[in-house]
Amino acid sequence: MAKTTPLSGFPELLPEQRFVEQQVIDTLRATFELHGFAGIETRAVEPLDQLLRKGDTSKEVYLLRRLHEESAEGHAGLGLHFDLTVPFARYVLENAGRLDFPFRRYQIQKVWRGERPQEGRFREFAQADIDIIGRDVLPFHHDVEVTRVMVDALSRLDFLPGFRLQVNNRKLIQGFYAGLGIAEGDQVDEVMRLVDKLDKLPADKVGDLLVADAGIDRATADRVLALATIRASDASFVDVVRGLGVGHPLLDEGLAELAELVESCAGLVTDRVRVEADLSIARGLDYYTGTVFETRLDGYESLGSICSGGRYDALASDVRSTYPGVGISLGVSRVVVPLLARTGLTADRKVPSAVLVALVDDASRATGDAVATALRARGIPCEVAASAQKFGKQIRNAERRGIPYVWFTRADDDGGQRHQVKDIRSGDQVDADPATWTPPTEDLRPQVVSSSTTSKESTQ
Amino acid sequence: MAKTTPLSGFPELLPEQRFVEQQVIDTLRATFELHGFAGIETRAVEPLDQLLRKGDTSKEVYLLRRLHEESAEGHAGLGLHFDLTVPFARYVLENAGRLDFPFRRYQIQKVWRGERPQEGRFREFAQADIDIIGRDVLPFHHDVEVTRVMVDALSRLDFLPGFRLQVNNRKLIQGFYAGLGIAEGDQVDEVMRLVDKLDKLPADKVGDLLVADAGIDRATADRVLALATIRASDASFVDVVRGLGVGHPLLDEGLAELAELVESCAGLVTDRVRVEADLSIARGLDYYTGTVFETRLDGYESLGSICSGGRYDALASDVRSTYPGVGISLGVSRVVVPLLARTGLTADRKVPSAVLVALVDDASRATGDAVATALRARGIPCEVAASAQKFGKQIRNAERRGIPYVWFTRADDDGGQRHQVKDIRSGDQVDADPATWTPPTEDLRPQVVSSSTTSKESTQ
Repeated sequence: MAKTTPLSGFPELLPEQRFVEQQVIDTLRATFELHGFAGIETRAVEPLDQLLRKGDTSKEVYLLRRLHEESAEGHAGLGLHFDLTVPFARYVLENAGRLDFPFRRYQIQKVWRGERPQEGRFREFAQADIDIIGRDVLPFHHDVEVTRVMVDALSRLDFLPGFRLQVNNRKLIQGFYAGLGIAEGDQVDEVMRLVDKLDKLPADKVGDLLVADAGIDRATADRVLALATIRASDASFVDVVRGLGVGHPLLDEGLAELAELVESCAGLVTDRVRVEADLSIARGLDYYTGTVFETRLDGYESLGSICSGGRYDALASDVRSTYPGVGISLGVSRVVVPLLARTGLTADRKVPSAVLVALVDDASRATGDAVATALRARGIPCEVAASAQKFGKQIRNAERRGIPYVWFTRADDDGGQRHQVKDIRSGDQVDADPATWTPPTEDLRPQVVSSSTTSKESTQ
Repeated sequence: MAKTTPLSGFPELLPEQRFVEQQVIDTLRATFELHGFAGIETRAVEPLDQLLRKGDTSKEVYLLRRLHEESAEGHAGLGLHFDLTVPFARYVLENAGRLDFPFRRYQIQKVWRGERPQEGRFREFAQADIDIIGRDVLPFHHDVEVTRVMVDALSRLDFLPGFRLQVNNRKLIQGFYAGLGIAEGDQVDEVMRLVDKLDKLPADKVGDLLVADAGIDRATADRVLALATIRASDASFVDVVRGLGVGHPLLDEGLAELAELVESCAGLVTDRVRVEADLSIARGLDYYTGTVFETRLDGYESLGSICSGGRYDALASDVRSTYPGVGISLGVSRVVVPLLARTGLTADRKVPSAVLVALVDDASRATGDAVATALRARGIPCEVAASAQKFGKQIRNAERRGIPYVWFTRADDDGGQRHQVKDIRSGDQVDADPATWTPPTEDLRPQVVSSSTTSKESTQ
């Protein structure tokens, strides 16, 4: 087999790095389940016409074709999913009669996008999505619920940097614009598109564009910009918006929802995971109709939003019903892969084994296997030495891979066995019984640690 | 969105069915980790030239193309992996300098094959692979190890039917054939191909083909057939083979290895998970060089082998080293999806929630959230009622989804709160404190149960 090279945009991890990613996924899953979300998976492929309904991502779709396609029998029309929302909407329609609504689901799967690879942007990456979907109706308190679930999940990922959830509400923006007399449709869309440039251009430059491209007057542009600069970690933004002197029923509704969302999260936020109203957040996608979310990872702002979503009044619809939903999607690979590369976050061992069972000689393998079986019966991961080298070599072999304990079994003078276990970090060696000895809980599984010894090249 | 239909060969599961599959995957993963196997994932795509090295599967490969491919920049040469062995071999070569050998890894991922869908044969399915790979050398005891690990894993899947692991050894077959004077190369391959038809054709018919197509004489054909009919659950097969009067050093080696394998598993086998030497097993793939495995699921023999593998002396090689390996691959979807369809295996609830927190009125949602937060803090999955319907409706809503407990919080006479929890299976309702109440362990998570109420249409 020829020497192979990594593929740009398709990151792969070493075992000790994969452990970190797995820990993230396990924590997310455990949190989602604590909140009553059921896990599902959908197939990797969707019919092309479904994938292309979001026009702006059409270039990024990977099409499938069989190598020796005998006929045009349909597979020419399949592509890999580029998110988990399109497949979930289809799944809900297909199974609507067998699901109970409101239906809470989480889904942690790979998605594929043919875009240009860069830091935090991959062609294959894992996403973790939570959504609550209703039939015909879905009360606003579910917007609060998904936010609280994601705040809880991010809080439990305590080996990651902090997160800042930025929330806004499309009703608030659209009501404000309507109150200013900006025309619904193209003009509102153009204003939103330009306001979205505030993170790249200075405010006065965006103001000029609002006048020139969106066709609104300077005073209106100033109030649009004033709205977009409002940020608050509590409901104080309501009075600030009121102070801009714009009135509209939709604005009132949006203000009330956003205030409720921020206040309902107040008891959950910490220094590490914050929730703030940020009235510049609009999300480009036109199916959001209320709450919108973006999330920044502290120290990794250049990655953009790594956890986004919102409320859609019609995630899906069939002849009988409309299915409103609210959800958030965390870019697992977008967070984990750059972190591994930049910080050397890793596991403190390369294998799950907590114990290496050493061998006196090759004939003692059955004895070693029996010790290992006894340890595993009580949930202690272990392995038997690959060969009966000198004990010093067997210990170094464990040490190199971060295995904390080595087990020795020797024949004793009266024909029985003497068992000892050595903590190779401290050097302490004590008598032990394979039927009862248990390591401290923190030694049972690998732990996530920050290590400067992991080289950057190890992620692609 | 138009009504959609399932895609043949791309099975999807309802939440309560996905729970069963997830339980299988979790059990496999936990067992593999107890034995010191590290989890990795590889990208879904491989360069086409790597995928086509196994000529016989080339028709089944799905090629990728970007929808608006601007240039030929390489993606025309990518396909979806059809197994986890080809990607693992490539991963080992790419990371050889950063891995420790022998390297034990498990990998549980989807694979894709464009073959014709039928029961247990899908175009997208999950596989669970374990392999141990060495650098230049890999002692035989690792063949025993992977077998024992898989027997342990299958034993822990106690809600599945029984498994019969059939093991053989290519050295045994090839040594026996060499001792009979069958020419190495094409003639041996042709004999193996014909012997493989024994499960479809009667022995005398296969004997005729051996004479006509493989060009061996009748007496030799009879001894080839005699070997292929030998089965034993202990090492007694050695004497039976010896009795056929064929001698060859490679045969001796194969007999010794196979006898050791079967005897080393004797302490692990049960009525549900058996290991037997079956001298008809050859595996078509020519890279196996010693131990070969196949596995039948009791009552589902028509699925063929659902867990297969073996020893390869050169899983991969680079300019400096050869990497011998031994591994087994379990077809997770091949087992789970037919079982769900045929037996109605399912979870006893449709959601992870053990408790539904009922609401007296909509204003009491904050109180309900506080109860739920207290329960979750102690690992109890729960959800707050979607709306403050009459208690009877809230209870039926929990019951319909299999949630065993409903929690009630009412204001009591002296301005405090009175908490009660109802087991809706028994109807018992008792006072409870959200800070201390804990359900029995078996109620914490959904359990796998066999239910005749699950309809067959629910899997595709």
